[in-house]
Amino acid sequence: MRKESRLLRTIGQALVVTALFFLGFIIGWFAKNTNQPSADKDASNKYLREFLVEFQPDQIRDHLRKFTQLPHLAGSEQNLKYAEQIQSEWQEFGLDSVEMVPYDVLLSYPNKSQPNYISIVDRLGSEVFNTSLAEPVPQGYEDVSDIVPPYSAYSAKGQPEGDLVYVNYGRTEDFFQLQREMGINVTGKIVIVRYGRIFRGNKVKNAMSAGAKGIIMFSDPADYWAAGVQPYPDGWNLPGGGAQRGNVLSLNGAGDPLTPGYPAKEYTFRLDTEDGIGLPSIPVHPIGFHDAVPLLQNMGGPIPPNNWKGGLNVSYRIGPGFTEEFRTQKVRMNIHTNNQVTRIYNVIGRIRGALEPDRYVILGGHRDAWVFGGIDPMSGAAVVHETVRSAGKLLSKGWNPQRSVIFASWDAEEFGLLGSTEWAEDNAKVLQERAVAYINADSAIEGMYTLRVDCTPSLHTVVYDLTKQIASPEEGEEGLSLYESWHKRDNWTDDRDAPRISKLGSGSDFEAYFIRLGIAAGRARYTKNKKTERYSSYPVYHSVYETFEIVEKFYDPTFRRLQAVAQVRGGLIFLLADSQVLPLSASQYAVSLKKYAQSIAQLAQKHPQEMERFGVSFDFLFSAVENFTLAATDFHKRLETINTADPLQVRVMNDQLMYLERAFIDPLGLPGRPFYRHVIFAPSSHNKYAGESFPGIYDALFDIENSSDPQESWKEVKRQISIAAFTVNAAAMTLTPPA
Amino acid sequence: MRKESRLLRTIGQALVVTALFFLGFIIGWFAKNTNQPSADKDASNKYLREFLVEFQPDQIRDHLRKFTQLPHLAGSEQNLKYAEQIQSEWQEFGLDSVEMVPYDVLLSYPNKSQPNYISIVDRLGSEVFNTSLAEPVPQGYEDVSDIVPPYSAYSAKGQPEGDLVYVNYGRTEDFFQLQREMGINVTGKIVIVRYGRIFRGNKVKNAMSAGAKGIIMFSDPADYWAAGVQPYPDGWNLPGGGAQRGNVLSLNGAGDPLTPGYPAKEYTFRLDTEDGIGLPSIPVHPIGFHDAVPLLQNMGGPIPPNNWKGGLNVSYRIGPGFTEEFRTQKVRMNIHTNNQVTRIYNVIGRIRGALEPDRYVILGGHRDAWVFGGIDPMSGAAVVHETVRSAGKLLSKGWNPQRSVIFASWDAEEFGLLGSTEWAEDNAKVLQERAVAYINADSAIEGMYTLRVDCTPSLHTVVYDLTKQIASPEEGEEGLSLYESWHKRDNWTDDRDAPRISKLGSGSDFEAYFIRLGIAAGRARYTKNKKTERYSSYPVYHSVYETFEIVEKFYDPTFRRLQAVAQVRGGLIFLLADSQVLPLSASQYAVSLKKYAQSIAQLAQKHPQEMERFGVSFDFLFSAVENFTLAATDFHKRLETINTADPLQVRVMNDQLMYLERAFIDPLGLPGRPFYRHVIFAPSSHNKYAGESFPGIYDALFDIENSSDPQESWKEVKRQISIAAFTVNAAAMTLTPPA
Repeated sequence: MRKESRLLRTIGQALVVTALFFLGFIIGWFAKNTNQPSADKDASNKYLREFLVEFQPDQIRDHLRKFTQLPHLAGSEQNLKYAEQIQSEWQEFGLDSVEMVPYDVLLSYPNKSQPNYISIVDRLGSEVFNTSLAEPVPQGYEDVSDIVPPYSAYSAKGQPEGDLVYVNYGRTEDFFQLQREMGINVTGKIVIVRYGRIFRGNKVKNAMSAGAKGIIMFSDPADYWAAGVQPYPDGWNLPGGGAQRGNVLSLNGAGDPLTPGYPAKEYTFRLDTEDGIGLPSIPVHPIGFHDAVPLLQNMGGPIPPNNWKGGLNVSYRIGPGFTEEFRTQKVRMNIHTNNQVTRIYNVIGRIRGALEPDRYVILGGHRDAWVFGGIDPMSGAAVVHETVRSAGKLLSKGWNPQRSVIFASWDAEEFGLLGSTEWAEDNAKVLQERAVAYINADSAIEGMYTLRVDCTPSLHTVVYDLTKQIASPEEGEEGLSLYESWHKRDNWTDDRDAPRISKLGSGSDFEAYFIRLGIAAGRARYTKNKKTERYSSYPVYHSVYETFEIVEKFYDPTFRRLQAVAQVRGGLIFLLADSQVLPLSASQYAVSLKKYAQSIAQLAQKHPQEMERFGVSFDFLFSAVENFTLAATDFHKRLETINTADPLQVRVMNDQLMYLERAFIDPLGLPGRPFYRHVIFAPSSHNKYAGESFPGIYDALFDIENSSDPQESWKEVKRQISIAAFTVNAAAMTLTPPA
Repeated sequence: MRKESRLLRTIGQALVVTALFFLGFIIGWFAKNTNQPSADKDASNKYLREFLVEFQPDQIRDHLRKFTQLPHLAGSEQNLKYAEQIQSEWQEFGLDSVEMVPYDVLLSYPNKSQPNYISIVDRLGSEVFNTSLAEPVPQGYEDVSDIVPPYSAYSAKGQPEGDLVYVNYGRTEDFFQLQREMGINVTGKIVIVRYGRIFRGNKVKNAMSAGAKGIIMFSDPADYWAAGVQPYPDGWNLPGGGAQRGNVLSLNGAGDPLTPGYPAKEYTFRLDTEDGIGLPSIPVHPIGFHDAVPLLQNMGGPIPPNNWKGGLNVSYRIGPGFTEEFRTQKVRMNIHTNNQVTRIYNVIGRIRGALEPDRYVILGGHRDAWVFGGIDPMSGAAVVHETVRSAGKLLSKGWNPQRSVIFASWDAEEFGLLGSTEWAEDNAKVLQERAVAYINADSAIEGMYTLRVDCTPSLHTVVYDLTKQIASPEEGEEGLSLYESWHKRDNWTDDRDAPRISKLGSGSDFEAYFIRLGIAAGRARYTKNKKTERYSSYPVYHSVYETFEIVEKFYDPTFRRLQAVAQVRGGLIFLLADSQVLPLSASQYAVSLKKYAQSIAQLAQKHPQEMERFGVSFDFLFSAVENFTLAATDFHKRLETINTADPLQVRVMNDQLMYLERAFIDPLGLPGRPFYRHVIFAPSSHNKYAGESFPGIYDALFDIENSSDPQESWKEVKRQISIAAFTVNAAAMTLTPPA
């Protein structure tokens, strides 16, 4: 028995020892950090909630007030001061690094000693009417100096004199109608067009192509006046003395006109100004509707079609020139604007990613403003500022995002997206390899109705998911999510029950990131009701009346709309930077591609005989879209089965998601536009603002209307369909399992 | 005492238990698989040794014999048969997948019913001399059909008749000398030039630019005859009846002339043939030196400079036309070669990487041959075949490379690198993101002297490391490494004591991967003694005499030279695919960049006054190289400190190494050559074979000599220096710590 009991005890001890060994083993196994995702995911969710509640309306109000006190045109002393202030505050907020990044780009300013204006001159050359030299300054800003008067940046200098021709919005189709239906030639004439519908640079280019020697653009009440609203300061409408500043370049994504393709640094080779990209060769000038009346009211020539008539009490006759009675009067433009190479400053702040420092999520928006920038861009810049502040708070609580975050305050956006484009050129190689997404932060509000989101299809899902976690900012909608509020106001279509998300066009700083480099991109802002409010953008756009007060009094008195926009922009950055699996959807891209292919094929079907005659078919494009759809479905199925504890497995699939947008880039660019390289999304050649899907095919079809050689034109349509099919197929390949 | 002893025992037990717990913990900690590198590294080294000894001379001999039995021109039935055979054998060897990838590209063949030849015709139009229609067929191959006679692929059709002008090698400088110093205009003449020094396509382009209406190229004994060697079959010299086939395109990397930038697939839009890229507009024909004598011997005109004289017993007079006595005789070319869109086939085999399936290491070489391809390309294809066989053996022993390996048998290389370029275009997006390196496998031997390596600087270190592990194949060098054998035969320079490694030019299938896509690339082969053997390439190049026997009898009777080349090519693939940290050196790139910058600055210094006058400086380029050097040094220091047990840390730095070559790509391409996009390496515009460093600057400086507007030309030099400085700076940025 003694022996037995000792044996038993030994066995018992051995069991205990073994158990302890296993306990140790198991604890050792789990103690080892292998980036366990489940715990991190919970932590990340908790941080997201804390991040969203950190955004404060009062803080946003303070930021906006602070940065709209003084005019801060690109290249001005004041804009550098704001940059320095932003740099130092971002540092205080707790970013890992904040740097100032200068470039020397071509800007354009009025000549201070020789103001720009337009005259009506009589037969003796005396000026019988002159347009105003400045806008009436709003109350409270009377002592402010350095308010730049309305002008068209990069206008050619000159004093052309001649007869006016009115050409509606100055669109390609307006000039066609003028020339073909009305038989009016504008060679040697000065054209006058109303603002709206298309980017002003396209109007200028069209006028140049038609042979005009000058172009005047005016804000017509039909396009810049909301019914039942008072002009500023009693409401948010544009006063008759207000006018829209803006650049009139045709850059097509080139950035600084003198250094296309390369950053404008100290040592960079510069083109001579006469060879600069997209500079107009004729004088250009903008006026308000008060000044437009004297120019338009005595015009002769044919009565215009009804859709050429604006909201002024004039006949909108086409010209050329004035009626018989005033025949001897001519119009003279006096333009003395100068181009000059000027230093600009981007502010770049960074948070270094904890696990993947080489993956970048970017939030960027511009800082330069035509005058105070109350809406454009400081409503957006205030939101970025608040995002940085909130992110800093989170960092101080121990948040450590998986990927790196970059915050950018761009300069000289108003001069052709220069700051953002030069930085993209400077960092192109690194961005191509490492950028996950770019979220744009221009004006955060342009209306009082609902949310507006324009983004690449792969972001659709995360935008919906996120907006369900944000509260509606509208009074009376307590308890409703932003998603619900948005959904009820702007449902997509009959066949898609979800809030509408639109395509990205151009006209803001995402351009180089999205259209040139192929980085997934999106933007969000508060907007008007498009169905009932037909004016272009918002009435005081680019005027001196864009003040802090117009936001505080009219657009967002509680600053809760800006808060909601901040939560959307910031929340997207958070989710893109800190989700273990990137919240990008290849399947949503597939859904959109199918829709776009159908719609471009339908557009071509306007010409059934020619389609037949020249053997034009969209079959290969549809089959490519089908390939893409299958690849996307498979991809997301596989994504559900990966071992998320294996960081390489996750990285391999995240890289496929990240590079999906890159796959739509054609290094050869769109025809004649080497810096527009996205085969799925780019502005049409006829309007920089409008994002077209399959822009290569779209432009080729557009040109059919105007072609003297239909065979060549249809060949180009076929070539573009082939490029689109190849690109979609190649993008599908990037989603299949590697090797 | 009793109590005390129990206490002691309890303490003792507790200590044992605690110790066991810790033992368990520690074992648990280490038992967990976190891709421990040290064990893997040993395993990988063991596999490398097994891989290298697996390469068998006899196997290589067998592969070579098997694939050189019959002519296998691109687009022929036989070349498809070899493709199918390769596919099935690679499958048997054990690759994970092997697929056949077809493209439909523009090829060019002689018209079988109307042979090409050149005549001397008398005043009555009678042919008094005709060049031969074919080469004398070598012994043993008399019954072989489908030997394509010597021709210039893509020659224009036509029967131009006129006077001959002899223009030496047909280089840019030869035409300058002809026109400026000798005052001879070739407009409307037929030029005759000797092969050698530059790519034949450049000769044709120069002749076209000078206005010639036809061009004849001949192999002069001065350039294709080794002293003291018998003509084939008694030696390896070119018989007088042999001639050099070859394409005469000026593609500049475009691939298929009808589908530049896109893969030539079923649905791809094709240019009309008359708009095809790089097609010559004049007839072109190659002849051997027997046929050259009757054309040259009666030529009149000036006596040529001595360096224009070849090795034939003729005067090499320049012309135009014959001497007085034969003045009425003219030369007529009869060229009936046809272009036609033809299906070609690449064979693509893959091994899926175990840890990083999305990282690709590529070994590719062509299969199509002008006739038998005994040297070009099958000496290389046999090496690839043996590499696949050895890799298969390794796989069967349990080897599982970290990254994916791709093996390619390209088609239609001889027609302008078409198979490899179309596949690069087809897979561009995926390759840009995932390709680590491309090793080229064209002809493995062109001489009997030593190893020749051309590669990107980042591969220098691994080439040296590897060749130290390979034995010299030379008799009497038992115990010497390949490195030592190579080193003693071809030391770099006085200031660098290491075997010479050269820059990559073009002329083989690495082009699209290296110069267009920016993938690190290299090639290796056995070569002649350049100091003593002055003939171009090797004498029988592109003739019917490139048989299996010429290799077996003369070039490599033991097949140990081919074995050594196989070990170099295969060993590089192994190390690139299976080293935990990529064996790429940024520091070696820095060393080379410095040398290149010095050498291009020195070239410019030929024009000190103009440099001064136009303010041309290389300072920013030198400063960029300095930035790059510092960044590279820092990078490699950091690389030594990373935690190699953390797969993400390793991947982040490997990605920086992989993308380093990509950083030298300018998406805008070199001037006028959109598919040559590498700012550091590309062929000069004047000779496709020669790789130049800083080719943009080089070409701009070359054009200075020939410029009618020096100010504009120097502006272009400055622009190119600025682009080079930017690119080197941007590449330096990719090496700094991310974010």
